[in-house]
Amino acid sequence: MVSPAALGPGREFDQIRRTLAGAPPLPDDVVVGPGDDAAVLAPDVVVSTDLAVEGVHFRLDWISAREAGIRAVGAAVSDLAAMGGELIGVLASVATPPPGDLGEELMGGVRSRTEELGGHLLGGDLTRSPGPLLVDVVVLGRAPRPLLRSGARAGDELWVTGFLGAAAGAVACWQAGDPLPPGLRQAFVRPEPRLQEVRWLTSRVRVTAAIDLSDGLAGDAGHLSAASAVALRLQAGALPLASDLPGGDTLELALHGGEDYEVLLAVAPGTLSRELVDEFARRFQLPLTRIGDVETGSGVSLVPTGGGPPEALARGGFDHLAVPEAGDP
Amino acid sequence: MVSPAALGPGREFDQIRRTLAGAPPLPDDVVVGPGDDAAVLAPDVVVSTDLAVEGVHFRLDWISAREAGIRAVGAAVSDLAAMGGELIGVLASVATPPPGDLGEELMGGVRSRTEELGGHLLGGDLTRSPGPLLVDVVVLGRAPRPLLRSGARAGDELWVTGFLGAAAGAVACWQAGDPLPPGLRQAFVRPEPRLQEVRWLTSRVRVTAAIDLSDGLAGDAGHLSAASAVALRLQAGALPLASDLPGGDTLELALHGGEDYEVLLAVAPGTLSRELVDEFARRFQLPLTRIGDVETGSGVSLVPTGGGPPEALARGGFDHLAVPEAGDP
Repeated sequence: MVSPAALGPGREFDQIRRTLAGAPPLPDDVVVGPGDDAAVLAPDVVVSTDLAVEGVHFRLDWISAREAGIRAVGAAVSDLAAMGGELIGVLASVATPPPGDLGEELMGGVRSRTEELGGHLLGGDLTRSPGPLLVDVVVLGRAPRPLLRSGARAGDELWVTGFLGAAAGAVACWQAGDPLPPGLRQAFVRPEPRLQEVRWLTSRVRVTAAIDLSDGLAGDAGHLSAASAVALRLQAGALPLASDLPGGDTLELALHGGEDYEVLLAVAPGTLSRELVDEFARRFQLPLTRIGDVETGSGVSLVPTGGGPPEALARGGFDHLAVPEAGDP
Repeated sequence: MVSPAALGPGREFDQIRRTLAGAPPLPDDVVVGPGDDAAVLAPDVVVSTDLAVEGVHFRLDWISAREAGIRAVGAAVSDLAAMGGELIGVLASVATPPPGDLGEELMGGVRSRTEELGGHLLGGDLTRSPGPLLVDVVVLGRAPRPLLRSGARAGDELWVTGFLGAAAGAVACWQAGDPLPPGLRQAFVRPEPRLQEVRWLTSRVRVTAAIDLSDGLAGDAGHLSAASAVALRLQAGALPLASDLPGGDTLELALHGGEDYEVLLAVAPGTLSRELVDEFARRFQLPLTRIGDVETGSGVSLVPTGGGPPEALARGGFDHLAVPEAGDP
């Protein structure tokens, strides 16, 4: 029997909590139920779903329909990566404004990106939309020992893959009409699900919990904290900020910007050696950075750069129900 | 290694054919790939996805958001039913116009209907929509011996569960502003996936192929014909028309109306006895009707009521990319 994982703060998650309240117990062949990055059916089939809507998650004056498909696959597969899974393939449901060419372009991007990641287009649905172009990507994979959000324990170390803030930096540039550095555009269009990176780590290090960063580090750390019933303390000065972030509050982009699709990991203390971190960086051309600690208690706090008392990160990531993320068309 | 199932005519399916052209061979752990009612992963996990968009599949001046969720689950689970599968649960991705109450109502309908059907809400995604309310329902089930579209052979009999045309009749009444008989409304809001009916049949009779009727009998018969590489001959006079269909061309509603979510079955000749048909009708309070035959050749033809030479049904079902199905809002 499986219980839903606890979720962090936010209106979106309040609605999900209300929807799930009083749900009957899950059958034994459901290994992981609602509230984690994906559902898992016995013995090892991982299934997740991720919706990308024009005007909310992307705009067609920013990226092409094909790029929207490429982006949607990377974002969706990231849930599987955070569970330590291997990709089998995707199903894609597309709704397209008439005459449908945009939908076909988007579907071409979905197939191309899925095959780049080693998976297959396994099916889907193509229909008309009265407004926005949109795609729901269903990811299918396998994870014999799925890595959950709920395993972090006080004393664990917090690590993160890659750099933070680049996708949100791209959105900020587009919204301000500023020149867009190519690296930021790339981060937005082609997020890299950390499939191999997480499996490499779980085979060498005792990773106790993981979550991919879709809503922003602050919000997703909130989910991991709630699911594991622990407090997380982050070090502002340690956060690996992306290069070329636009001026202003770069820490805000890294904490609340969202859509980095890097992975936040809790790791048993002392098991991730300097040598392993260096080998990871060489092998994947990607930093692995210690950004904080797991403690007893609840919630997420941030120690300011240069030290001082930690501040509670009361605000989570994007509220997908309220904040105009990519701007209305 | 699995090849995609062939699809029938229609612009939607031309686009899907183009998208899948030249795709690499599927791995062995994919039992069923694109083009059937659902994908199947070894050993027996069935996954399908089905999108319902306001203004295309439903209108909120016709049904409530909760009813849209109820309807979407029934429609989506119908794919699993047509494969002879058992329901485990669903994941639902919802996009909702602000402030989000409609999305929560819809999600309530999704959970309630899923549990009525014996399944569980296993996860999902809740986000903002810049326009229409919409839901993508991912269905998870098990089918140790999935029933495909591709097994029909010349000489088989064609049978259909239930009645045809009721959901399209409801849409016709709404569009004309005519009074709506309760039975038609019920058929639109609460389609009944034939989970138990199909499993009961497959355990007693040699069912060689099946497809659920989402696009209309003509279009879905076209898919079964293409996937099995056979001709299908339907008898107009045998079609089980729903009661209370609006005046005019009721045969048109049954052939091209769509969204009946009944199941078209090809059955080995002589294995479905009168006694079994009667037992089916008693047990499920539902007719099982022989409506035609499988022959060598290709395409779908219709013998007019009263006899005469068969007419080719060149036109398929709804073209989801062009025809205003439920009318633009």
